[in-house]
Amino acid sequence: MPISRFYKLYLSPNRKYVKVLKNLLGFVPGNLSLYRLAFRHKSVAQNVKKGVKNSNERLEFLGDAVLGSVIAEVLFKLYPYEDEGFLTELRSKIVSRVNLNQLARKLGFDKLIEFDSRALNSSRQGSLLGDAFEALIGAIYLDKGYDFTKKFLINNIIKTHIDIRKLEQTETNFKSKLIEWCQRHSKDISFDLINNLDGENVKLFTVQASVDGEAVGMGKEFSKKNAEKLAAEKACETLGI
Amino acid sequence: MPISRFYKLYLSPNRKYVKVLKNLLGFVPGNLSLYRLAFRHKSVAQNVKKGVKNSNERLEFLGDAVLGSVIAEVLFKLYPYEDEGFLTELRSKIVSRVNLNQLARKLGFDKLIEFDSRALNSSRQGSLLGDAFEALIGAIYLDKGYDFTKKFLINNIIKTHIDIRKLEQTETNFKSKLIEWCQRHSKDISFDLINNLDGENVKLFTVQASVDGEAVGMGKEFSKKNAEKLAAEKACETLGI
Repeated sequence: MPISRFYKLYLSPNRKYVKVLKNLLGFVPGNLSLYRLAFRHKSVAQNVKKGVKNSNERLEFLGDAVLGSVIAEVLFKLYPYEDEGFLTELRSKIVSRVNLNQLARKLGFDKLIEFDSRALNSSRQGSLLGDAFEALIGAIYLDKGYDFTKKFLINNIIKTHIDIRKLEQTETNFKSKLIEWCQRHSKDISFDLINNLDGENVKLFTVQASVDGEAVGMGKEFSKKNAEKLAAEKACETLGI
Repeated sequence: MPISRFYKLYLSPNRKYVKVLKNLLGFVPGNLSLYRLAFRHKSVAQNVKKGVKNSNERLEFLGDAVLGSVIAEVLFKLYPYEDEGFLTELRSKIVSRVNLNQLARKLGFDKLIEFDSRALNSSRQGSLLGDAFEALIGAIYLDKGYDFTKKFLINNIIKTHIDIRKLEQTETNFKSKLIEWCQRHSKDISFDLINNLDGENVKLFTVQASVDGEAVGMGKEFSKKNAEKLAAEKACETLGI
């Protein structure tokens, strides 16, 4: 064992935190402050400079990009005969907040993350785990580089925790999600075909989704069915469903 | 000079193409078929398997992700005191179709790209250059790896061709874009503050942008101004402005 690794694990004042991370990640981290930052939610962050806080949000931006790139390559190679529409859709299922939250919970992030529970309502507490997961990817990338991060993601995350073939099968059906939500909240839902605007391609269908008469999403597609799907997706986004 | 490089540049039947690429990229490419693929638009692609064409679209998917990741890191390091909102916005300006198209044209891609002009209308021919640029990044990544691609992008593209500080200043003002468009097309535009839906955070403002009385975009934000901005952005998307 190299001396720096020995020091980190057995002598340094941070040895406890190093061991926690080693158990979680399967490797000995280099720059500990990056990992601490990855687990610091903005609700407990301090100002470091005018208006800038030492929260995990910047690392989340970086990690989201690195994760997107790694998953793109994995899918590109795993599905040599699928087109880019298929790859894009499958990737967005893998990196969806719902999926990353579950993953982060399974990995035990809830014990590591620092946040102020009073500052958060329940829906936001939910996505805080997935956000920290992305921030962690950013921290690993800065600490160890791209190839290491890619190997870590493939061997420790994707192969062990993500069932890509299963995700491939599950269709995210926004229309039924929206309808269920409206039933649960006793709201009226309607999908209306609305006129095309002047000068637009006449083959395009425009569908507006309204909840209790209020427009919440619009979709424009070459088939009515797909326009409805898109309107439902936008509506789910607007309503935070 | 290693023998394989000598062969590629002076003896191989592909030496002309190798030299063209070397002049364009500044390095000797390895796997030529990747680069050929990057410059092949779907209008001239052939079927390689049921419904799958050998066009540059899959490489574009991969290259888009790698480019996003490299730009994320560049901005992360260049702006240590800006938040993730700033970084996200600046990145989207850099990788916008308009910007990548200009870049690809400047680099002379129009001479390399294969496409069938009859199959394309003028607006699509425009984005074909930017698409090929992303596909090329995908090809370089598969051929040479992440670190090489990152260095190539930083030294040969970003430092020489992208004025980040200038892009930082140019604000994409969707609201004025939308208003101008409406004036040009003699349409009424209105931004209306609409009620929050039950059970939602009361601090959120919901603004709906309507053109000639038809809802075309909605924005939800913690300030009325930002909600209007978002509604305008969505409206520009809906209307294809």
